[in-house]
Amino acid sequence: MEKYFTEKWGIFEITLQGPADGNPFVDVRLQAIFKHNHREIIVDGFYDGEGIYKIRFMPDSEGRWEYITLSNRPELDNKRGEFECVKPSTGNHGPVRIKNNYHFCYEDGTPYHPFGTTCYAWIHQPEHLQEKTLETLKKSPFNKIRMCVFPKHYSFNSNEPLYYPFEGSVEKGWDFSRFNPQFFRHLEKRVKDLMELGIEADIILFHPYDRWGFANMGRENDERYLRYIVARLSAFRNVWWSLANEYDAVESKNITDWDRYFKVVQESDPYQHLRSIHNMHNFYDHSKPWVTHLSVQIQTPYLGDIGKWREQYKKPVLIDECGYEGNIEYGWGNLTAEELVRRFWEGVVRGGYVTHGETYLHPEDILWWAKGGELRGESPERIKFLKKIVEEAPVDEINPTSLTSWDVICGGKEGEYYLMYFGNARPAERTIRLPQGKKFKIDIIDTWEMTITPLDGLFEGNIKIKLPGKPYIAIRMIKVE
Amino acid sequence: MEKYFTEKWGIFEITLQGPADGNPFVDVRLQAIFKHNHREIIVDGFYDGEGIYKIRFMPDSEGRWEYITLSNRPELDNKRGEFECVKPSTGNHGPVRIKNNYHFCYEDGTPYHPFGTTCYAWIHQPEHLQEKTLETLKKSPFNKIRMCVFPKHYSFNSNEPLYYPFEGSVEKGWDFSRFNPQFFRHLEKRVKDLMELGIEADIILFHPYDRWGFANMGRENDERYLRYIVARLSAFRNVWWSLANEYDAVESKNITDWDRYFKVVQESDPYQHLRSIHNMHNFYDHSKPWVTHLSVQIQTPYLGDIGKWREQYKKPVLIDECGYEGNIEYGWGNLTAEELVRRFWEGVVRGGYVTHGETYLHPEDILWWAKGGELRGESPERIKFLKKIVEEAPVDEINPTSLTSWDVICGGKEGEYYLMYFGNARPAERTIRLPQGKKFKIDIIDTWEMTITPLDGLFEGNIKIKLPGKPYIAIRMIKVE
Repeated sequence: MEKYFTEKWGIFEITLQGPADGNPFVDVRLQAIFKHNHREIIVDGFYDGEGIYKIRFMPDSEGRWEYITLSNRPELDNKRGEFECVKPSTGNHGPVRIKNNYHFCYEDGTPYHPFGTTCYAWIHQPEHLQEKTLETLKKSPFNKIRMCVFPKHYSFNSNEPLYYPFEGSVEKGWDFSRFNPQFFRHLEKRVKDLMELGIEADIILFHPYDRWGFANMGRENDERYLRYIVARLSAFRNVWWSLANEYDAVESKNITDWDRYFKVVQESDPYQHLRSIHNMHNFYDHSKPWVTHLSVQIQTPYLGDIGKWREQYKKPVLIDECGYEGNIEYGWGNLTAEELVRRFWEGVVRGGYVTHGETYLHPEDILWWAKGGELRGESPERIKFLKKIVEEAPVDEINPTSLTSWDVICGGKEGEYYLMYFGNARPAERTIRLPQGKKFKIDIIDTWEMTITPLDGLFEGNIKIKLPGKPYIAIRMIKVE
Repeated sequence: MEKYFTEKWGIFEITLQGPADGNPFVDVRLQAIFKHNHREIIVDGFYDGEGIYKIRFMPDSEGRWEYITLSNRPELDNKRGEFECVKPSTGNHGPVRIKNNYHFCYEDGTPYHPFGTTCYAWIHQPEHLQEKTLETLKKSPFNKIRMCVFPKHYSFNSNEPLYYPFEGSVEKGWDFSRFNPQFFRHLEKRVKDLMELGIEADIILFHPYDRWGFANMGRENDERYLRYIVARLSAFRNVWWSLANEYDAVESKNITDWDRYFKVVQESDPYQHLRSIHNMHNFYDHSKPWVTHLSVQIQTPYLGDIGKWREQYKKPVLIDECGYEGNIEYGWGNLTAEELVRRFWEGVVRGGYVTHGETYLHPEDILWWAKGGELRGESPERIKFLKKIVEEAPVDEINPTSLTSWDVICGGKEGEYYLMYFGNARPAERTIRLPQGKKFKIDIIDTWEMTITPLDGLFEGNIKIKLPGKPYIAIRMIKVE
C-alpha cells in the first residue's frame, strides 16, 4: 500500500470516480469518516463534474489518520485509506481561532492580528488582473481579504465574471441545482493562492449586488449552495465565513433565513472556521452563539463604540468597513489616506481591528475595493507600520487601559504596555499618569511620517512630556523595570 | 431748558447726586420711567460710588422721550427730563434679536450671522494687553465675543485681575453687598469698545473657575449682583446675557437657582437682550421660555445634532464651544486650524453657528481664549472667508436642504441657494440633483485655500460635476433663472 503524507492543517484530498448521470449534485451523497486515535470526523465530499468526486480533509493532529467513505452509490461507498499527518511547514500555523474573547491566534498559538483589505470581486476579473492583485497583496501588509463568492454588480463593477457558479447562461437562465465546477475550482485556486501568501480569505457567501439572480435563489438552493461550498472549501485553513455583505440589503432573506444559514454552515464545517455577517445599517444579533466575531460596517468616522460592543458581545470587534481611501463621490469611498490610517490606529488602540479598502477613480474602473489590481494609496504603507508595531509589542493583545481619557485613547496592557493615540488632535505636550514603582521607556511615534523617536531615560509616575504638536501622534510606553 | 439728543439704540444717561452714607447699593432704590407716545419703560438706576447715581436708557424709537425718577430718597426722587431720540448713526443697527426661530437679525432688520470668538478673561489682563486684544478684534472677522464678568482662575490663567468686583481684598475677603464701581466702569468701557467695533458682548455672568468666592456668594448676593449688572449694562445694545459658562460645573448652584437667575435677568432687563447658558456636560433645558437660543458645548467633533436641536427647541443653535485651534495638551484645545474651520463650515451649513477660540502654548501663558492679545492661528482668515460667503448669499438664512444626504451636508434655501460641504471627504466628482426647471450657477469653493472657482455655464436637474478630490471643498449653487 502506498503511503501518503499530509502536513498538519494541510489538505488531504480523495478523488473518486462515480456516476455522471442524473444530477450528481443532488442525487449523490458522499461523506468520509476520518479517524485519528479516539476521534472521528465526518467530512462531506462533493461532485466536481465529469464523474469525479472529491473529499477534502484538513487534519489537525500529527500521526496516522484512517478514513472510510459513505455514499448512497456503491461505487463511492466504503472506500478506505489512510495517511500520515506530519508537522506543518514553515508559515503554516493552522486556522485562525478566537483568543481571550476579543482577539485571535492561529491554532498553533501564534498571535494573529487581522489587518484586512477588501477586493470584493477580484476573482471575477480577467486572469492577468487577478495575478496583479496577488502580486500586490504579496507586497502589502494585509493578512485578510474580504471577497465575494458570487460576481458583483455595482458602481464601477458591471462586467460579467470569468465563470458562473451554476450551469446555464445569462441568456437562458441558471439551473441552481447544478454547480459549475470550473467556477469553484477557480475560487479554490484563489483561496489557495491567498493561503500561500498567509492571507485569510474572508469569504462572503451572499451579497445584494446582483443582476443574475444569485441573491434570490430560494432557501433550498441557498442551502445546497452553502453545503457545497463548505464541502469544497472548508479544508482550506485560511477560510473565514462571512454569511453576507450588507445582509440587511438582501431583500429576499430575513433574519430567520440568516439564522438557518449560519447553522447550515456551522453544522457542515468540520473545522469550525470563523463565522460572521456584515451589516449595512442594522446589526445582526452578534450575541447568537454561531457568530464568532463582529464584522461591522459603520458610517461614522469615529470608532468609539468598539468598547461598548466588546463589553456587550464579548467577542472580537472587526470594523470591516469604515470607509475607503479614495476619491469617488460616495462618502464611503473618499477618505484621505490620513483619515483611513487614523481609523486603523483608533480601532487597534481601542482593542478592535480595522479593514482597509481603496476606491480611487480609474479610467477603466479598476478600483481595488471591487476588482483588485494595484494599490495607489498612501495608507497601506502606514498600515504596515502599525502592523509592525502591534507585532513587535511585548503583549499579544491590545485592550483598553486606564490611561484612556475623554480626549485620548490608550490601549495595551495595564502596567506593562501602553499605546496612546491622539488622532487628529495635536498637543504639544501631555501629562501622563504612569503606574508608580515601574519604569517605562517611551517612544514618540509619528504614525503618518512613520518615525519612532525614543525619549532619553526612563519614566515613572506622573510625567509631562513634549510632543510634536501635530496630528497623528502616538506614544508608546513599555515597562522595562 | 437745554435739549438733549440721543441716537436710537444709543445710551441716554442720567447722573444724579445722592446719599453716600450707609450702603447705597442696598439702601437706595432708584428707577426712572421713560415715556414715549403710548409707552412707558421702567429702568433701574445704580449707585456708581462717591454719591453718584446713574440711570441708563437705550431708546428704541425716534422722537421725544420724557422721564421721571422714582426713589426712596427724596434727593433722587421725582427728577424729570426729556430728550430727543434721533436716527441711529452708521453701523448702529440696534440689539440682536431672534429671527425665524433659528436665526438672528439686528433690531433694524439687518441680518446678523454670529461668528464669535472666546476671550474669557481679557478684561482682567494688563491694559496694554486689552488694547492689543481690541486691535486684534478690529482686524478679525469676529462679531461676537464670549467674556466673563468675574476674573478667572484656570490653567494658563492664574494672575490676579486688574480690578475686583466687590469692596475688599484677597487678604481680607469681600463685602459682596458693596460693588466696586471702578470694576464695573472698566467692564462697561470694554463693552463699549466692543460696541464700537460692531462686536456683540456675550457676557458670562457666572463661571466655576474661581478662587475668590465669586462663584459661591449665596443667592441674595447673586441676585443683587445680577440686578446691578443689568442696571449698568443693559442699555448697551451689544449685550447678550450668558447666565454661566459650564453652569453644570458651578457646584454651589442648582437648576432652581439658574431658573431663578434667568428670571431675575429677564425681569430686570428692559430691552430683553438675548439670554442663554452654556453647559459643560449636561444641557440646561433650552425649552424654558426665558432661553432665547442654545449656547452649546460639545465634546464630539461632528455637529450632526444641530438639526435635532433646531427641531427640538425651535431656537437658534450656537455651538459656542466645540474645541479651539491650538496645541495645548487638553483635547478641547488642540484642534488644527483645518479642523476648527471644518467645524465652522459644518455648523453653518447645518443651519447653526459656531464660535472660535485659540489655545496655543505661549511662553507667558497668553492664550487668546483666556487672555486675548494676538491671534496666531490660521482659522480666523478662513472664518472671515466663510463669513463673507454667508453675508453675500442671496438669502439671509441658511437652513438644511433636501440636497443633504448621509455623506454630504447642504444648507441654503430650497430651490434658491445651496451651499454643499464635504468636510474632510474628498470626492473627485459628485452627482447632484438640482431642481428641474430652474437654472443655477455653480462655484467650487476651496474653503481652506479660500478660492472660488466658477463653473462654465448654467446647470439644471441631475448633473455630475468634477471636484478637486481634496478635503474641505464646498459647492455653491445659486439660482439665476
